[in-house]
Amino acid sequence: MRTSSFFSKASGFLRSHASSSKLLVLLSLSAGSFVAYSDSQAETSTPNLDLAQKDPKKKRIVVLGTGWAGTSFLKDLDISSCDVQVVSPRNYFAFTPLLPSVTCGTVEARSIVEPVRNIVKKRNGEIRFWEAECLKIDAANNRVMCRSNIENLVGNREFSLEYDYLVVAVGAQVNTFNTPGVKENCYFLKEVEDAQKIRAGVIDCFEKAVLPGLSEEERRTNLHFVIVGGGPTGVEFAAELHDFFQEDLVKLYPMVKDLVKITMVQSGDHILNMFDERISSFAERKFQRDGIEVLTGCRVLDVSEKAITMKNKAKGETSSVPHGLVVWSTGVGPRPLVRDFMEQIGQRKQRILATDEWLRVKGCENVYALGDCATIDQRKIMEDISAIFKAADKDNSGTLTVKEFQDVIEDIVIRYPQVDLYLKSKHLMDVTDLLRDPEGRERDEVDIEGFKLALSHVDSQMKSLPATAQVAAQQGAYLSHCFNRMEQCAENPEGPRRFRSTGRHAFRPFQYKHFGQFAPLGGEQAAAELPGDWVSMGHSTQWLWYSVYASKQVSWRTRVLVVSDWTRRFIFGRDSSRI
Amino acid sequence: MRTSSFFSKASGFLRSHASSSKLLVLLSLSAGSFVAYSDSQAETSTPNLDLAQKDPKKKRIVVLGTGWAGTSFLKDLDISSCDVQVVSPRNYFAFTPLLPSVTCGTVEARSIVEPVRNIVKKRNGEIRFWEAECLKIDAANNRVMCRSNIENLVGNREFSLEYDYLVVAVGAQVNTFNTPGVKENCYFLKEVEDAQKIRAGVIDCFEKAVLPGLSEEERRTNLHFVIVGGGPTGVEFAAELHDFFQEDLVKLYPMVKDLVKITMVQSGDHILNMFDERISSFAERKFQRDGIEVLTGCRVLDVSEKAITMKNKAKGETSSVPHGLVVWSTGVGPRPLVRDFMEQIGQRKQRILATDEWLRVKGCENVYALGDCATIDQRKIMEDISAIFKAADKDNSGTLTVKEFQDVIEDIVIRYPQVDLYLKSKHLMDVTDLLRDPEGRERDEVDIEGFKLALSHVDSQMKSLPATAQVAAQQGAYLSHCFNRMEQCAENPEGPRRFRSTGRHAFRPFQYKHFGQFAPLGGEQAAAELPGDWVSMGHSTQWLWYSVYASKQVSWRTRVLVVSDWTRRFIFGRDSSRI
Repeated sequence: MRTSSFFSKASGFLRSHASSSKLLVLLSLSAGSFVAYSDSQAETSTPNLDLAQKDPKKKRIVVLGTGWAGTSFLKDLDISSCDVQVVSPRNYFAFTPLLPSVTCGTVEARSIVEPVRNIVKKRNGEIRFWEAECLKIDAANNRVMCRSNIENLVGNREFSLEYDYLVVAVGAQVNTFNTPGVKENCYFLKEVEDAQKIRAGVIDCFEKAVLPGLSEEERRTNLHFVIVGGGPTGVEFAAELHDFFQEDLVKLYPMVKDLVKITMVQSGDHILNMFDERISSFAERKFQRDGIEVLTGCRVLDVSEKAITMKNKAKGETSSVPHGLVVWSTGVGPRPLVRDFMEQIGQRKQRILATDEWLRVKGCENVYALGDCATIDQRKIMEDISAIFKAADKDNSGTLTVKEFQDVIEDIVIRYPQVDLYLKSKHLMDVTDLLRDPEGRERDEVDIEGFKLALSHVDSQMKSLPATAQVAAQQGAYLSHCFNRMEQCAENPEGPRRFRSTGRHAFRPFQYKHFGQFAPLGGEQAAAELPGDWVSMGHSTQWLWYSVYASKQVSWRTRVLVVSDWTRRFIFGRDSSRI
Repeated sequence: MRTSSFFSKASGFLRSHASSSKLLVLLSLSAGSFVAYSDSQAETSTPNLDLAQKDPKKKRIVVLGTGWAGTSFLKDLDISSCDVQVVSPRNYFAFTPLLPSVTCGTVEARSIVEPVRNIVKKRNGEIRFWEAECLKIDAANNRVMCRSNIENLVGNREFSLEYDYLVVAVGAQVNTFNTPGVKENCYFLKEVEDAQKIRAGVIDCFEKAVLPGLSEEERRTNLHFVIVGGGPTGVEFAAELHDFFQEDLVKLYPMVKDLVKITMVQSGDHILNMFDERISSFAERKFQRDGIEVLTGCRVLDVSEKAITMKNKAKGETSSVPHGLVVWSTGVGPRPLVRDFMEQIGQRKQRILATDEWLRVKGCENVYALGDCATIDQRKIMEDISAIFKAADKDNSGTLTVKEFQDVIEDIVIRYPQVDLYLKSKHLMDVTDLLRDPEGRERDEVDIEGFKLALSHVDSQMKSLPATAQVAAQQGAYLSHCFNRMEQCAENPEGPRRFRSTGRHAFRPFQYKHFGQFAPLGGEQAAAELPGDWVSMGHSTQWLWYSVYASKQVSWRTRVLVVSDWTRRFIFGRDSSRI
């Protein structure tokens, strides 16, 4: 019994840091079931009551998705005044930026996932989670239809939820651009399962290649890895794969070491073309040294089980090469659920679900969309130019003085962020410089025509946000902030003034802050684009990458696991077991 | 570049401990490809030559299976004089005793597997491994037919290997006793994949049970876990499941905490009935306290998707209970490959492949079988009794003196281990005590009839070895020892004398040393049966279990991983993400 009490004390102490109630449960293991009982009583009310719980006064919020957007929304949401239900087919949050590391076992899949229930638990069960897929959004009746995909379910697997506010954060799906054979014969890199499949697939290729009785040509084909898409994900996977082979597999499969080939197919002229060109050329040189072939300006026409056919845009000639494994990592497209929703609300023509600057879906009062499933349709300043002029021209003189302009400029910049970008691009110090005449001389006042002319090029600076974790996370945090201060801001709005009507907007529009982006290139080297056009490349950047990614982990558990995975790899290398 | 060299030095140093050649590869990353080239040249010859390599002088050994038996055989095999090929559908060795811990995430699947190539690598590529399934053993022509199961294989997936010696270590498969519905509706616990499936299945059950719109009855059904088979594996899984729920899931799914039920179905009268009854009753009491229902004396008649039907042997009544998940962990049976092989060599009637005491398959000169796929058919002493008498009776006096008996007794005990067991069971000090007359008086000599009478009950002590990792590992080590000293022992045999013919056996027969067995019971308690009928139970035994299992790991990598998994669970609990 001494061991027992020692044990429970020790681990109780440790666990109490992870979660206070854990201590109770643990004691219960040694001190009998009574404690367990009272402990869990404290945790919740009786089963059914809890599951059916509804508070008429509280506003009902339904959240679809537990990715970056959904999770960061839930994290900061003040649930004292609302009844929140979360629906997602995955009961965990995945730290997607590390997916490429999972494909080769540099990091274990389990090290980058955290159960949603762990994340929402800290809100004493006020947030309810259902592991199910949302099949349909019925915007007209404020309800969503859901279905559980779990097999052998005893009971009805379909249910519907009513909402006062709906938050759509279901993310996007891989875009095959309707290329024949891609769905059937390509690996993807979007979900955790995808990364695990790739890992097994890579090992398979090596085991295939060493089988007796194959010709050298057949061995080469089995070991030809093709990556379609030269974006950050594709590039990082190529780098991981090259390292996996160079550092680990070459020793286990020495007989085929000269037969391995990695090819990257990119439709654009450069890989990583969303980055600064210093980075893309650095990456291309690095890949060249590593023997990774980069085919730029190539479009994939077809992927069969055995070969991939592509067309060189410049030369116009098509070629077909045999492959062992193809990873498809190009752009993303809307999910069927979102497509259907867009049809309902008259966004049929849109390429992707459009929201206003406050993340509210256009055409729906109480539906918000964030993350990869939606895009902000920034309002053009030229659409409101007359209203702005009218509002600014207090004395209705028909002309705008610098003084009058300065009174409204702050609201303009907040409402139309492109103004700021335009100033930066033109290297203008002050907004009033916009009012200078074509020859650049200062003016005391401008009429409506002059005003229009002055701002005519501002909208050219508008660009939609990238589909990154960074954007989604910021949007989630922003939206929860809005929800938390909804009543408050209804009374005293904190947003910019309305030019077309009177009064002010309740909130400031969402504004994205870019903290930079990494591109790991393998061999303990990485490239990074940091705020202020600052570019950093090489080994030191890789260490920066390690520290940033370790610090960004969602929980202490995953942080410890990821760091210990890195250490494990550093000491023992990667595991090549096919599980 | 400074970072680079620092890095390569540092990690080079670390890695050099893991494997010397790793250092070279690593340098090659920073110091250019030349080193990599020379390094890999050092490692192997050109691809095809290596794959086709055959040395006529060397004896060709083919090993089927990379489980406990196969791996421990390969570990100590002296490959200087033989050309070894290994065939297994799994390219890794799995530390199966920890499988139950994997089912609930106490230990990660990857922590208990080690790539076969890592294990054989240390023999500088002399041992060749093929990830493929053996379809047929053609004993007549000394060849095996194999096929790779990997998808999208470019080239011919079938091949055959010729052997001088064949080592069959393919293990056994789950035995459903032809119970209807078991294959379709039950989880098993034999392979790593099985454990992973169970882990996902358990989480599914909880996610199902909390879905909205289910009746309490339906929730209960989804959370009813049934384990068929009260052996060590089943019991350990039940314990793991109970801990998983009590320590972790209860906090994430508090609303259904009162609805969870674990039922263990055992055909015998007690669980763990292969253990000392002190242990089985301790386990039964522990399970009772934990609320795990144990149904003894029950036979399962049928398992459907929703319910399991069983018959109480004593009362004779059948009952059907709804279930959420059923784990089938009863006995094992021979694989189709082995069945077919048995047909070929005239063992059709045997329940399982029979070998002699030297692990040589009965009816095959050059085929050995070890581990779960075979059993040693110990020769009865009564079959040879006359031969023994004749051989012992040097002066052909027709009677055996104590002196004459003593001359042969050592060989007898080695050849017929049951003699030793018989003496122990009868608490006899000395073998000569066997010769005492029925009244227990010493005799100077016995005739053939008296001799037969004296030994008539000896064979009753024969028992076949359990299908455990311990037995398989010892057999593998024993067989490699025999192979290594084959030539040597052909000249100077080290085995016991032959009674039916002349001379001695080349080797001593295989003898199993039982080092005890553990049964973890959950709540940091375990029971252990140690050599010398010594029984230990409780928390201290659990710590003994930890240390033994940590020390038994096959590699330092897995050792570190398993221990860190235990620590991780101790601090953060188990992960409930459904991946």
